[in-house]
Amino acid sequence: MAVVTNLDEKRRKAGGDALEALIGLVADDLKHVNDIIVRRMHSPVPLIPELAGYLVASGGKRLRPVLTLASARMCGYRGERQAALAACVEFIHTATLLHDDVVDESDLRRGQASANAVFGNKASVLVGDFLFARAFQLMVEDGSLDVLRILSNASAVIAEGEVLQLTTSNDTETSEEAYLEVIKAKTAELFAAACRIGAVVAGRPSTEEDALRSYGLNLGIAFQLVDDVLDYSAVQARLGKTIGDDFREGKITLPVVLAFRRGDEEERAFWRRTMEQMVQEDGDLERAIELMNRHNALRDSVERARHYGAVARDALGLFPSSTEKRALLDVIDFVVDRDY
Amino acid sequence: MAVVTNLDEKRRKAGGDALEALIGLVADDLKHVNDIIVRRMHSPVPLIPELAGYLVASGGKRLRPVLTLASARMCGYRGERQAALAACVEFIHTATLLHDDVVDESDLRRGQASANAVFGNKASVLVGDFLFARAFQLMVEDGSLDVLRILSNASAVIAEGEVLQLTTSNDTETSEEAYLEVIKAKTAELFAAACRIGAVVAGRPSTEEDALRSYGLNLGIAFQLVDDVLDYSAVQARLGKTIGDDFREGKITLPVVLAFRRGDEEERAFWRRTMEQMVQEDGDLERAIELMNRHNALRDSVERARHYGAVARDALGLFPSSTEKRALLDVIDFVVDRDY
Repeated sequence: MAVVTNLDEKRRKAGGDALEALIGLVADDLKHVNDIIVRRMHSPVPLIPELAGYLVASGGKRLRPVLTLASARMCGYRGERQAALAACVEFIHTATLLHDDVVDESDLRRGQASANAVFGNKASVLVGDFLFARAFQLMVEDGSLDVLRILSNASAVIAEGEVLQLTTSNDTETSEEAYLEVIKAKTAELFAAACRIGAVVAGRPSTEEDALRSYGLNLGIAFQLVDDVLDYSAVQARLGKTIGDDFREGKITLPVVLAFRRGDEEERAFWRRTMEQMVQEDGDLERAIELMNRHNALRDSVERARHYGAVARDALGLFPSSTEKRALLDVIDFVVDRDY
Repeated sequence: MAVVTNLDEKRRKAGGDALEALIGLVADDLKHVNDIIVRRMHSPVPLIPELAGYLVASGGKRLRPVLTLASARMCGYRGERQAALAACVEFIHTATLLHDDVVDESDLRRGQASANAVFGNKASVLVGDFLFARAFQLMVEDGSLDVLRILSNASAVIAEGEVLQLTTSNDTETSEEAYLEVIKAKTAELFAAACRIGAVVAGRPSTEEDALRSYGLNLGIAFQLVDDVLDYSAVQARLGKTIGDDFREGKITLPVVLAFRRGDEEERAFWRRTMEQMVQEDGDLERAIELMNRHNALRDSVERARHYGAVARDALGLFPSSTEKRALLDVIDFVVDRDY
């Protein structure tokens, strides 16, 4: 057991380094992105930069804009447009986080009180709308209808995914297929768009656009799968969100889907009581985690993530070797093996 | 008094006819707009067309898309693009209504239970996001960066206006200036954009774009002013919203601004108690209306609307006579003198 743990530890460490390496590669561009974000979330209405800044400064990993920057570089682009477009991606992401937290009634986000907890639901809804509109203004300034098409399509699909998640929540008989459909839409589409834009600004042929889209899509699926595992397994301080949030909300993620399907009738009754009827007692979260471990639901969810990571890896096969390609491949390990 | 009432009655009647005349002029196009709306609010996620359809079918006046259609016609445009763009305008409007009702916690919209009352706040937030994204998809299909610029700018300004309203609510010392700033942003900008797009699709020079923008902006201000008056004076069944909503929410509109500034200390204490401290008792709404009437706050708010209507009228001065111009001028009277 100790050996396995050490292996896991090494793997995690390598993954974290991979993220830092990717960020390091695009550090100058990322500084530019951050400048644009700060400048363009400004508004004469002070609550807007206050609230947006609260979330932006709380320091996400900036994974999505970093993917845009690295993809553009891997495609040989050396111009100036990628920073503003990466900022669009981050604005859209931030807008969906704000609305997400309202919909999920979350109190924590990245280890801090969530924006809705501090500023209220109303402000979160409206500032989300503002950031979404601002993203489209930035795209219009850039002037590419292709980028506008990619990100307006992604935005519509994300909203569809969120609504789908709403209508399938609290259903313990949700299939793995239906779960995948939700996370593809609500998470992976924006990863896909973020990467694809790199090929678009570089004016690369559609095969490369498609390849980067596929890389992003599969990386995004892996990312969300691991996110959903971490909701039951991470160390709260590193994860930056409350452990067991999904459980308390009755959100049916893959660990639940697997544990429910692999469980006996008594266990299924437990899942129905806690996640459908939402009758939860002290110790239920611990029992849920225990059942997941008994049926290897967490481990196998990570294995599923590894599968999508492998697809993402092959998607980049077309591109010649480069420092950026290496970093994009290595970050797959971070996404799959991270513990935060 | 009887004479005045009859005059008012005639004026109202003429106004209603003016709206019908305007709608009649663009009836074919409007049918096309409705088809696009129904087709494009479709989604594989059934809750989306259900919820969007609930609001769309509840039958607003379709004033904003009608303005786009009539403006395009007045500018001599005879192509096919105006219907899709008018649908965009209506989608953006519907998205803001959905989010508005969540933020305002409204139970009624156009005389029916509001979408958030029927489908819940979460679905309203997310379907609003979907409609907003869908509007941008439609604009991308149309392909005009000018239209995208106009409507992404308008969307950002609308969100800013909503946030501004949130931060100024419950402040009885709000100035008429600050109130105007809010309604310009949250209502008039979309009217302005709706009209301006008519000149853009017709490829008219920027003087005509500006003229239609000014017409729409001032018409929109007049529209919101009268809306805010009707919240205290309309017959509930015709208005299609609950009388006194603004009062109960502590929303500071011009009738309150004027009544507060024109009132004595005892009256100001009443406004502070009811609209700042939000301590409201039976009979308070009646007292509020009584104070507004004593100080002519409702009448003078309508007079302010008439002023903006006059500016809107002059904005169209550049355009040669036409049936459409006549109808756009007449609809100003509807907006100012309507009782619903």
